[in-house]
Amino acid sequence: MPIEKDDRVYILLEDGRDYLVRVTPGKSLGTHLGNLELSELLGKEFGEWVFTSKGKKAFLLQPGVVENIFHMRRRTQIVYPKDLGYILLMLDVKEGDRVIDVGLGSGAMCGALARLVGESGRVYAYERREDFIALAQENLKEWGVIDRVTIHLQDIEEGFVERDVDALFLDVPEPWKYLRQCWDALRGGGRLAIVSPTAGQVIEVLRGLGALPFVAVQVWESLFREYKPNPSTFRPFDRMVAHTTYMIFARKVFETP
Amino acid sequence: MPIEKDDRVYILLEDGRDYLVRVTPGKSLGTHLGNLELSELLGKEFGEWVFTSKGKKAFLLQPGVVENIFHMRRRTQIVYPKDLGYILLMLDVKEGDRVIDVGLGSGAMCGALARLVGESGRVYAYERREDFIALAQENLKEWGVIDRVTIHLQDIEEGFVERDVDALFLDVPEPWKYLRQCWDALRGGGRLAIVSPTAGQVIEVLRGLGALPFVAVQVWESLFREYKPNPSTFRPFDRMVAHTTYMIFARKVFETP
Amino acid sequence: MPIEKDDRVYILLEDGRDYLVRVTPGKSLGTHLGNLELSELLGKEFGEWVFTSKGKKAFLLQPGVVENIFHMRRRTQIVYPKDLGYILLMLDVKEGDRVIDVGLGSGAMCGALARLVGESGRVYAYERREDFIALAQENLKEWGVIDRVTIHLQDIEEGFVERDVDALFLDVPEPWKYLRQCWDALRGGGRLAIVSPTAGQVIEVLRGLGALPFVAVQVWESLFREYKPNPSTFRPFDRMVAHTTYMIFARKVFETP
Amino acid sequence: MPIEKDDRVYILLEDGRDYLVRVTPGKSLGTHLGNLELSELLGKEFGEWVFTSKGKKAFLLQPGVVENIFHMRRRTQIVYPKDLGYILLMLDVKEGDRVIDVGLGSGAMCGALARLVGESGRVYAYERREDFIALAQENLKEWGVIDRVTIHLQDIEEGFVERDVDALFLDVPEPWKYLRQCWDALRGGGRLAIVSPTAGQVIEVLRGLGALPFVAVQVWESLFREYKPNPSTFRPFDRMVAHTTYMIFARKVFETP
Repeated sequence: MPIEKDDRVYILLEDGRDYLVRVTPGKSLGTHLGNLELSELLGKEFGEWVFTSKGKKAFLLQPGVVENIFHMRRRTQIVYPKDLGYILLMLDVKEGDRVIDVGLGSGAMCGALARLVGESGRVYAYERREDFIALAQENLKEWGVIDRVTIHLQDIEEGFVERDVDALFLDVPEPWKYLRQCWDALRGGGRLAIVSPTAGQVIEVLRGLGALPFVAVQVWESLFREYKPNPSTFRPFDRMVAHTTYMIFARKVFETP
Repeated sequence: MPIEKDDRVYILLEDGRDYLVRVTPGKSLGTHLGNLELSELLGKEFGEWVFTSKGKKAFLLQPGVVENIFHMRRRTQIVYPKDLGYILLMLDVKEGDRVIDVGLGSGAMCGALARLVGESGRVYAYERREDFIALAQENLKEWGVIDRVTIHLQDIEEGFVERDVDALFLDVPEPWKYLRQCWDALRGGGRLAIVSPTAGQVIEVLRGLGALPFVAVQVWESLFREYKPNPSTFRPFDRMVAHTTYMIFARKVFETP
Repeated sequence: MPIEKDDRVYILLEDGRDYLVRVTPGKSLGTHLGNLELSELLGKEFGEWVFTSKGKKAFLLQPGVVENIFHMRRRTQIVYPKDLGYILLMLDVKEGDRVIDVGLGSGAMCGALARLVGESGRVYAYERREDFIALAQENLKEWGVIDRVTIHLQDIEEGFVERDVDALFLDVPEPWKYLRQCWDALRGGGRLAIVSPTAGQVIEVLRGLGALPFVAVQVWESLFREYKPNPSTFRPFDRMVAHTTYMIFARKVFETP
Repeated sequence: MPIEKDDRVYILLEDGRDYLVRVTPGKSLGTHLGNLELSELLGKEFGEWVFTSKGKKAFLLQPGVVENIFHMRRRTQIVYPKDLGYILLMLDVKEGDRVIDVGLGSGAMCGALARLVGESGRVYAYERREDFIALAQENLKEWGVIDRVTIHLQDIEEGFVERDVDALFLDVPEPWKYLRQCWDALRGGGRLAIVSPTAGQVIEVLRGLGALPFVAVQVWESLFREYKPNPSTFRPFDRMVAHTTYMIFARKVFETP
């Protein structure tokens, strides 16, 4: 399928610098390796490449979830792919699931959840700030998943509207304050994931989870290390991300047998 | 929805030991904390719990992808959740995708891919050993995704049957021998993931990828560390998995613009 | 210098199993690869090897600080080499230094400090339990450094006897209770190292250090990963130590300029 | 002991920026937090502090081995403290030892070794480049250990002058070429440490060690992670050093029993 007007294209330059553009004829992309007239992309196939004005290669690729996250407009901390993949597995998100996402922020996690629940599932997102909701809506539209999302402009202090959800992702400054509300919203056996960057916060969350009927409580952190992809100098890059967040997981059970 | 005959149930004992059973009336599960008559599970809701013969709690939970992997019958090395989540993201597997999985082995990765491509997608699995295929089929049936999978009993030396696949996962002893075949099977911009446990193998793969039109070549490894989920002694567990595999990613481009 | 009666010898079998023995004629060492009459070691040079009764090689090597630590008699948690080397550097321990070690425990850290301060330096060790002191004395004698150590059977609640010490190593269950005492004992610019295994403890220590004139406060943890030393399968071993302790460092300054 | 003319002082500003100066009356230190007349330091005690011209605190501390390394003049890659401490332990360097250091480079490892061998020990350093030797000599003088070091301006291809050394540290681009020479120079049971940044180099070294009478071959890497030293936001810093070098260790044995 050739690239058409308004398609989203992930452009990778030969030196590794990358861009995510929407093909708008008449517009051009300025890069440190020369310019690219976006109209030149029309009719090209993904996997093909074009030359910049300086004669450098620009590869035309489909954007996926990872490229979307690293190139989205954002005003909040995102969940990194290194953690995101694991959280999605641990929450067991799949076609048809009903999932709560709070706080919505710039929409990265919401988009990743909506992508997995499919047409038959639904994501319920909570956010207190209208400006974040506006930004997230823009991003969710860009990714084509906004139809699967219900957004609540609402504080979760009074609890969630939904009941019996399959999974709940909680990313708020003081998560330990809302654990009862999470329990109320989940179905029996439903899965909870909480991200918190500091050790003190995790300790508070563990204290809270211990006072409620949650089981399978686990806390994880991930360290991903990238290597130089060169056969003659194969070794890790000099620096890496040391920490993004702790990930806390738990499953709801009932209070009595 | 109450638990019915033949349902699969993930049973978590109060001390953390866990089991994955199929509810067969008349059968019982023997554990170090006492026995459990499986017929007692009938009519229970997930999230409820029962007592073992020794009066210990046994929580009844739905099995998900992570529980399936750790409790599957297997005769080969599995891909760990710590790597699996990241690979699925990097391969951008989603509803409707056509994906190749080689070698099939016990079927863990195949099952994870089939879960994501949905009803409208398809996984093409390659495996040279009939006994592995038999085992994998059993597992894929167990997980309810076998209808989405085509299995080829075939060496990939002569290449793949399919063309223009969206993604390809390669887990074989000498992956560098099959890179041209992978390139042939992928669509333009299609995504390749290779796992290899030793550094020498990765160096060989990088040499091979460098000789073919692949871009966005990345090599990663992941270290996941679990913490004691106890507020008063919050710290990592003493030991952890140090290494499973290196993960190599690349995308196909065409040889000429 | 040939091995003599009563010499300490580190014996490494060809399969990697190791032993630390004192050469006592008439005694024999039983191993899973056969027996070794210790009298056979007399007159051998270090670096030579002998055969066990089953014809396996046993290499004769000098024990050093790392072998001493892993083969010492102990009843307490030891400081691992992975942390020990860094702590010794950060404490800048060297010839002639006067250093406090608390609690003494089985004597591993004390021995490492005594080894570095030399004949002209001194280690002041504090311990509340007589049985630990007896064990540590035995170990320090074994390593030949007991003459450099003064041992106090004393709780540090009321402070240390010494003043103006160059460095202080604090390894006790509730280190935050003794920070003022540490400050009193150190010279201006003196170095403090504290080990604590849990995050909650570190938070308490940081709170305490913040209330006193300490600068250059740093908290570190180390992850050491060992690789299979085989050229054709070079890769990390499957499992590793995930956590031993957090290491906290600080330096004393005065309250007024 | 008050600070005197020509003393070396480690100056730590209240925001964590640091400097290592030699007290030269008439000179001043310019910092982003104001200037400091070095003559003001005369007569101060270590641990005291002075104000910069902008009224900011500057703490006066003794420099130690870690401060020396991070503030030395250098033109080569240094061995980081995270690896240095471990290497010194694994080489078991102590008072009276005779140790070979190659290549000398800017002198960091040589200085660390010389510090440990004491007055009665000796470090034999090899370096092919005269300009590196000049720089290293300057650094070793600065640290006060040059009297313990013999420097050879010499390629090690033809081997080392010394025999029966206790330990040998090898940091050269192609270490596998000199393993026989290392074996020749070491005493029986003597310890060898090699640093190599890439996996391919380590594989070569392992191949070479396997062909010679070396035992106790180990390969390690270290990951050190620093935490924010703040009780209310205790968590790792965002980024860390991902890789410096692989560390290879081995001990010499004789070819025949």
